[in-house]
Amino acid sequence: MKKIAFDIMGNDKGILPAIQASVQFVEQNPTFEIILVGNEDEINKHYKKKLNNIKIKDSKITLKFTQQFRSVLNQSSSMIDAIKMVKNDEADAVLSCGDSGMYLASSTFLIGRMPNISRPAFMPFIPTIKKDKQFLLLDVGANRENTAQQLLEWAKLSSSFYKHMFNKENPIVKLINIGEEEYKGTTLVRETASLLQQEFTINYQGFIEPRILLNNETDIAIIDGFSGNLILKSMEGAILVFKSLLKESILKTGWRKFLALLLKPAFKEVGEKFDYRNVGAAWVIGLNKIVIKTHGSSDKKSFLGALNQVKIALEKNILEEVKRELE
Amino acid sequence: MKKIAFDIMGNDKGILPAIQASVQFVEQNPTFEIILVGNEDEINKHYKKKLNNIKIKDSKITLKFTQQFRSVLNQSSSMIDAIKMVKNDEADAVLSCGDSGMYLASSTFLIGRMPNISRPAFMPFIPTIKKDKQFLLLDVGANRENTAQQLLEWAKLSSSFYKHMFNKENPIVKLINIGEEEYKGTTLVRETASLLQQEFTINYQGFIEPRILLNNETDIAIIDGFSGNLILKSMEGAILVFKSLLKESILKTGWRKFLALLLKPAFKEVGEKFDYRNVGAAWVIGLNKIVIKTHGSSDKKSFLGALNQVKIALEKNILEEVKRELE
Repeated sequence: MKKIAFDIMGNDKGILPAIQASVQFVEQNPTFEIILVGNEDEINKHYKKKLNNIKIKDSKITLKFTQQFRSVLNQSSSMIDAIKMVKNDEADAVLSCGDSGMYLASSTFLIGRMPNISRPAFMPFIPTIKKDKQFLLLDVGANRENTAQQLLEWAKLSSSFYKHMFNKENPIVKLINIGEEEYKGTTLVRETASLLQQEFTINYQGFIEPRILLNNETDIAIIDGFSGNLILKSMEGAILVFKSLLKESILKTGWRKFLALLLKPAFKEVGEKFDYRNVGAAWVIGLNKIVIKTHGSSDKKSFLGALNQVKIALEKNILEEVKRELE
Repeated sequence: MKKIAFDIMGNDKGILPAIQASVQFVEQNPTFEIILVGNEDEINKHYKKKLNNIKIKDSKITLKFTQQFRSVLNQSSSMIDAIKMVKNDEADAVLSCGDSGMYLASSTFLIGRMPNISRPAFMPFIPTIKKDKQFLLLDVGANRENTAQQLLEWAKLSSSFYKHMFNKENPIVKLINIGEEEYKGTTLVRETASLLQQEFTINYQGFIEPRILLNNETDIAIIDGFSGNLILKSMEGAILVFKSLLKESILKTGWRKFLALLLKPAFKEVGEKFDYRNVGAAWVIGLNKIVIKTHGSSDKKSFLGALNQVKIALEKNILEEVKRELE
């Protein structure tokens, strides 16, 4: 029985979507157990049909951001309690939709980094223009400043992860830059490129521009945390505005409005694919355990997406495979 | 008579769109003269109906990128010849669709920087969700690494520019960051924020995330050149992919296909607004003259957009106003 500790507090949409997703997940996957970590009284209001492989860990406090994060480590909160379950081998993976910064700091401190990894990174699976094809983007904001060596470590780590997760030898690794020419980019980008070129254990194929990032031209895209976060949020913002303007334009006339109704399925189909919430689950990669951050306004669907990523990773014993390979 | 030197070589779509845009522009604006700088034989193939306020400067060579850019300064090429017309006061503004890097380096070297400006920046006008409202985004790639002082200079420069260009006192200035909280971002971002807070000549209103950059929450958004370029290209890429998936999804069934045809005007309307080519004109701001870079695959419409920006700037004597204010 594989166990997943799930901190369900701190979601903008309340605890219901997490409970619904958990119930559906364990019904479909009877060899998994989910421990809902949160306010038990609240949980029992929504969780009526009791299942054997759903447990509750009562933890009434929702962790808030503080710059003195060490002070929270010894106090009970749903996030810290969930992380500690993994630390103490009471669970095999932990998910949380709480504050990203606190989650990153606490899980790094409590669980520890993998050997040869200096910094963890947030690593979402990003959809591409090709159906069912995703790529790994890292870091999207765990770090505010990085060195070339850290980016090299992530390239190796994510290559190994990708290989086992998606059964593909030698996944393509590209470095995000503002152009494809060698002389372009910051000192960090050019130093990283030079390290990646010398690293023969990975399949490095040069620079990629954000303009074609979603075009399925790479399996892994590496960048520092600040830039990666700007890229993700720029794409999200552009698509949101584009959708809203299109809607506005369509609703301008009665005729168009009627037609738009009939086209709704197509809009929904594409809209959802690139809804940030659906790529909102990011791995906190580089730690000794499976640690997943779900988006702070997740719905049932996005939680199910995250749980299914964890399922594959646990079934394939990803973390042990990656650790073995990196040593 | 205001004169615009227009290097029309180096456009992916050939010289025709530039000629058509120039003809239409001078017909609508008889107090302006355009000097088409390029291969005269080629120009005469397309330019049949001769107008008094269109001149041709024969310049047969299209400048290619070289890392030894100083070698090109003393050789004739359409780009260098056009820049020199402005340098020698034979024209009041220069436009080029040639190589960005060469244009930046050559125009900076030949024309020189404004007093108190250490580095020029690429500054496009970016459309927002609000009709006819644009904001200034800088730098989008003229610089690969910047200091806080340079970003402060741009904030002052663009504030003054915005005020005169759009007749608005105290335009809002925001700094792009990965969050709105004070502690977020790189050292550069936080140092810049600290300088901007102390600068009482500008209306600085804190951080803005790329996610809401197009939501008309600021008049000016400041960032270093590397990050700005990533943001612009991420937005462009996301919208292109979104459009193409939507099209694909709509064309899946015969019925939807028919409906989509009727909805085409709405798609076109929104698509064009966020087509990168239509924001492709960027000011090389910080130089002693009006220098505009048009996109390397511009059509007639985007050239007309750029020419109209130049027109407003020349009529309002923007550059002199800005220089006076910054001294």
